[in-house]
Amino acid sequence: MHGPRDVRVEEREAPRIIEPKDAIIRLSAACVCGSDLWPYRGIEHLEWPAPMGHEYVGIVEEVGAGVQTIKPGQFVVGSFWASDNTCEMCRTGYQSACVNRVPMGALGAQADLLRVPLADGTLVATPETPPDALVPSLLAASDVLGTGWFAAVAAEAGPGKTIAVIGDGAVGLLAVLAAKHLGAERIIATSVGESRQRLAREFGATDMVEERGDAGAAAIKELTDGLGPHSVVEAVGTQESMMQAIHSVRPGGHVGFVGVAHGVAIDGMDLFWSHAHLHGGPAPVRRFLPELIELIWTGQIDPGKVFDVRLPLEEAAVGYRAMDRGEAIKVLLQP
Amino acid sequence: MHGPRDVRVEEREAPRIIEPKDAIIRLSAACVCGSDLWPYRGIEHLEWPAPMGHEYVGIVEEVGAGVQTIKPGQFVVGSFWASDNTCEMCRTGYQSACVNRVPMGALGAQADLLRVPLADGTLVATPETPPDALVPSLLAASDVLGTGWFAAVAAEAGPGKTIAVIGDGAVGLLAVLAAKHLGAERIIATSVGESRQRLAREFGATDMVEERGDAGAAAIKELTDGLGPHSVVEAVGTQESMMQAIHSVRPGGHVGFVGVAHGVAIDGMDLFWSHAHLHGGPAPVRRFLPELIELIWTGQIDPGKVFDVRLPLEEAAVGYRAMDRGEAIKVLLQP
Repeated sequence: MHGPRDVRVEEREAPRIIEPKDAIIRLSAACVCGSDLWPYRGIEHLEWPAPMGHEYVGIVEEVGAGVQTIKPGQFVVGSFWASDNTCEMCRTGYQSACVNRVPMGALGAQADLLRVPLADGTLVATPETPPDALVPSLLAASDVLGTGWFAAVAAEAGPGKTIAVIGDGAVGLLAVLAAKHLGAERIIATSVGESRQRLAREFGATDMVEERGDAGAAAIKELTDGLGPHSVVEAVGTQESMMQAIHSVRPGGHVGFVGVAHGVAIDGMDLFWSHAHLHGGPAPVRRFLPELIELIWTGQIDPGKVFDVRLPLEEAAVGYRAMDRGEAIKVLLQP
Repeated sequence: MHGPRDVRVEEREAPRIIEPKDAIIRLSAACVCGSDLWPYRGIEHLEWPAPMGHEYVGIVEEVGAGVQTIKPGQFVVGSFWASDNTCEMCRTGYQSACVNRVPMGALGAQADLLRVPLADGTLVATPETPPDALVPSLLAASDVLGTGWFAAVAAEAGPGKTIAVIGDGAVGLLAVLAAKHLGAERIIATSVGESRQRLAREFGATDMVEERGDAGAAAIKELTDGLGPHSVVEAVGTQESMMQAIHSVRPGGHVGFVGVAHGVAIDGMDLFWSHAHLHGGPAPVRRFLPELIELIWTGQIDPGKVFDVRLPLEEAAVGYRAMDRGEAIKVLLQP
């Protein structure tokens, strides 16, 4: 990305092993993330030009001398933070707060080849090379599925519970899928788009709310005896969506938030009176990867359905535009 | 209170049974709360003149026709919300969000007599009339102990954990006591006052931090391998203390906040990157009352030590002034 709304596909120097724990992978598929739209829309400033992309699956080409478990030829899935998976933060399931973490976004996964630091900690190999049909779902696990899953877990979705999901991007839709898998009894999705509503229902949504903000919170309360749902996922990252989540949830309920909170200031008094539990942040996707890969491999979930547009990598700019305009839920790029 | 810094003790009409579920109690002791200082300092506006006080213990004088378990002659402890203790919110332990709750502050517990709505749900009777020596501790259970306890529970204090407590008022000090009882291994208190530091250590504090705000957060991080404590209690209610708590806690750790959040706006991005769990609000003291009364009755805890000034009720204004100036940790008023 050379600046807001300026995406170009160019030849860059091929990545190579720099640290002994690095691996180089050849990407099987890449994609555009909702969070890539923050700089695209000029809301977040990067050092231009910036390599883009932080979601990836592919075949290991080469590993550094310090890599012990990951081998060339393996098909691997990683997340948007490289993490050692051995430090105290990783051991408690917060790999996105790993003391040695490296952000993958700066390395640029919308490409043919990618350098992955801390390969043994970061990458999870599939049982064997997957059939093409599974690649989109495995790619989803790299971020949007893992992030939606974390949000649903942070919101303590589970049997007997009602959950509302604020946001109908890929993360919100996959939080619906996660809540369903975690056993939630009732799942309230929030969307106005027909195709998104259809996918939400396919993933397990039982109710739909079209209003946003405080009207949305009121509509959700009305669906839940006036008390509010036990669990709410916030998957947008705006002031309106965050306050909608806090104003929706019942006292003692749990809000899981994963929208990157741009310009959000949570009113302390509102939070105080809400009696909400609030937890979120950059999802520790690595925590969930082994389980998610297993669920995909055995056909129990099909998160790859969020990719409704596929383009060759060369047409990345078209993909960004489609995401920006809401014409695509999520764009898969084929290197 | 007739206005900021204007506290008068006056004759008012004696409270009487209004609703069938009311009880009238004769107060054995009353006290001034840190939260009473918000209107005293002119930060919170009330309808003047406002009856004050929401912490109470005493002997039941009379009950309404709809009261079934509470009997005249019993010594009882209640909390600052009257609650039915039967609704769905109460049953899940959030009596301070009871669908029928009544705020006790408006009824005025700094008095001889007090009307308590929803008596069966609100009041907990002691095994028998307590000796005078136990009355301060039972009064503490009514709010500051129950609130500190909720904060420590919300912060998930427990065995093997390190907890930091921001704030050295009665609630903060009793959060230290709660954390100790809940099994916390290391308890970092924050205070500059010698008598408060002494009491904090008596209650179980193992470490002391004197800095505040971001310097305080840095000092707490330094004491905890740079990662931060597992648990943090926020018991002040200012922007500085809330952000100190969020900036102190380790990723995945828990902040329990009970300071009434005046003028607080939590930066969404800071919270996002902190990976903190955040939970708090008006404490559901009723949840903890039976256990707290048992611990006090059997001499396992002595929270009454927070009362370092005792005055006759007539001198309430002196008590407010002492609390305002930080010359008293907590003032007990004797009717």
